[in-house]
Amino acid sequence: MNPQMPWAPAFQEATWNSSLGDFEAAAERIAGLALRSPLIPFSDEGGRAIRLKAENLQPLGSFKVRCGANALAALSDKQLSGGIATVSAGNFAQGLALAARARGVRLTAHIQDSASPVKLEALRALGVTLVPQTPEAWMRIALSRETGADDGLFIHPVCEPAVIRGNGTIGLELAADWPELDTVVAPIGGGGLAIGIALAFRALGRPVRLVACEAEGAAPLAAAKRAGRPVAIERTPSFIDAVGSTSVLDAMWPLLNDLVDDVVVVSVDEVRAALRLLATRNHLIVEGAGALALAAAMSPKTGGRNVVAVLSGGNIDPATFCQILSEGSR
Amino acid sequence: MNPQMPWAPAFQEATWNSSLGDFEAAAERIAGLALRSPLIPFSDEGGRAIRLKAENLQPLGSFKVRCGANALAALSDKQLSGGIATVSAGNFAQGLALAARARGVRLTAHIQDSASPVKLEALRALGVTLVPQTPEAWMRIALSRETGADDGLFIHPVCEPAVIRGNGTIGLELAADWPELDTVVAPIGGGGLAIGIALAFRALGRPVRLVACEAEGAAPLAAAKRAGRPVAIERTPSFIDAVGSTSVLDAMWPLLNDLVDDVVVVSVDEVRAALRLLATRNHLIVEGAGALALAAAMSPKTGGRNVVAVLSGGNIDPATFCQILSEGSR
Repeated sequence: MNPQMPWAPAFQEATWNSSLGDFEAAAERIAGLALRSPLIPFSDEGGRAIRLKAENLQPLGSFKVRCGANALAALSDKQLSGGIATVSAGNFAQGLALAARARGVRLTAHIQDSASPVKLEALRALGVTLVPQTPEAWMRIALSRETGADDGLFIHPVCEPAVIRGNGTIGLELAADWPELDTVVAPIGGGGLAIGIALAFRALGRPVRLVACEAEGAAPLAAAKRAGRPVAIERTPSFIDAVGSTSVLDAMWPLLNDLVDDVVVVSVDEVRAALRLLATRNHLIVEGAGALALAAAMSPKTGGRNVVAVLSGGNIDPATFCQILSEGSR
Repeated sequence: MNPQMPWAPAFQEATWNSSLGDFEAAAERIAGLALRSPLIPFSDEGGRAIRLKAENLQPLGSFKVRCGANALAALSDKQLSGGIATVSAGNFAQGLALAARARGVRLTAHIQDSASPVKLEALRALGVTLVPQTPEAWMRIALSRETGADDGLFIHPVCEPAVIRGNGTIGLELAADWPELDTVVAPIGGGGLAIGIALAFRALGRPVRLVACEAEGAAPLAAAKRAGRPVAIERTPSFIDAVGSTSVLDAMWPLLNDLVDDVVVVSVDEVRAALRLLATRNHLIVEGAGALALAAAMSPKTGGRNVVAVLSGGNIDPATFCQILSEGSR
């Protein structure tokens, strides 16, 4: 056990013990805030079909509204009276902010100073107090759950059973919408998205292959799988933000090691090409992590016959998006 | 009766007589080709809610896959043996092409020489024979149903009961997804989209206000409503293609006059702003006609408390899209 994370075993045990009833309760709680997102056919060739779970269409543009809403719904007004705090790459804070606003709760978000301007603007518009942090300080908060300030009840963006169960509602919808589905491809930020989906399928008693995807130069889960434990990597920044940290969180590692069947690493150019396809073929705007899931689903390295790519979010700077789109016509 | 259109009365009568069973049969026929598109919340302020019917997410990027699929499904292999022909602003030919390819039927499309390059490329990729026409020649074909060539059974993009019933499947979905819906805002090309939706609600015995929208400088339905009959207008070209012809079709006028409750005309700048909102808030790429529907839904001229904007399609040139998007950050 990591001495920095005395809270980890309790989190892991509660998460593992998530029942079908927990996921169904989450689905009911979030119904008023989150969209039941569509599953959109992308391709069907050579006996292999890919469909898109369009979480970029959620309010505030990412799946994080599901976990933010579920995390807050589980807490009493008294527990929330001193406000809440989180550490976020941007999207989780937005999801939490929407739910917090509906409850009249003050939210402080510790964010990476490299977060995309479009995410920061959206957070300010929602009345969130922003505290920029260096990557190192940001990671320290994520590890310790201590923000170093008296800014309210801390809600972890990944390592909370209620957060992971909120993510798991995606799994319930996928299982209902595509009974023949055999493979789910999800991007890995903290890992909560993939784990939530995997646990929901497990609670349904329905086997599905869970493929995590990472981009070259930012693939800590692939490194951890090779080493058999979380290891620090040199991270090459790209337009693909909010995924591929410098290391897998120790608290998530046992879950990721057991529940993720494969890790597929694709190039940044493949992600750019997938982003263009989603724009021109499906008329969807996705952020890097969303395009990453499609790039991995299309890769020959990812098996499966009936494959879902989870388009995690759409919060990309318009200028970056248009720059990548314009590369397609050269 | 217009002597150019001896076929009009039979078309009008059959269309008026569309039963709920006709719309339900259409919904069944198109289920394999068309997406049951999502209804996405856009805003909910001051007692007025707007939701988006995202037809831009359809295969080939527009609602036309619904009517193309339904029109073809009603015809026998023998009727299709000599190929089919149509006249189209681009999207209808695409919808028909997808269905034709599935049946192995040859399609010739007479298109306006001003159609967007992205639409023409998509048609070529689908194996469609393209015949460019001047606006006048194009309109002559739409009026007469005569292409002047031996290119197969003619399928009109608007004035076919099967086409209008295919469009009506949108109405069935809206009625099921939002029981409190009171107003539908739809763009007017030929008028088949609005009429199909209106007739479906009528067949359901469920009243709904049908608001047609047009852009300034291309508003033939508004002109016809003022004059009490179709009149020719001077059309100012803009990026909003495939809507706002130089005149309402005589064959559609009785239907439009009876079934469209209001016409709302918005400025091209309002449409550009709506396009930006759909991109940045909802991560959707829409073509001009799609953004037009949202611009009209947002206009104070359009009443209603529970309002749907039908985002008819997403086939816009990436360069045009990014140009408009970039204007938002000035």
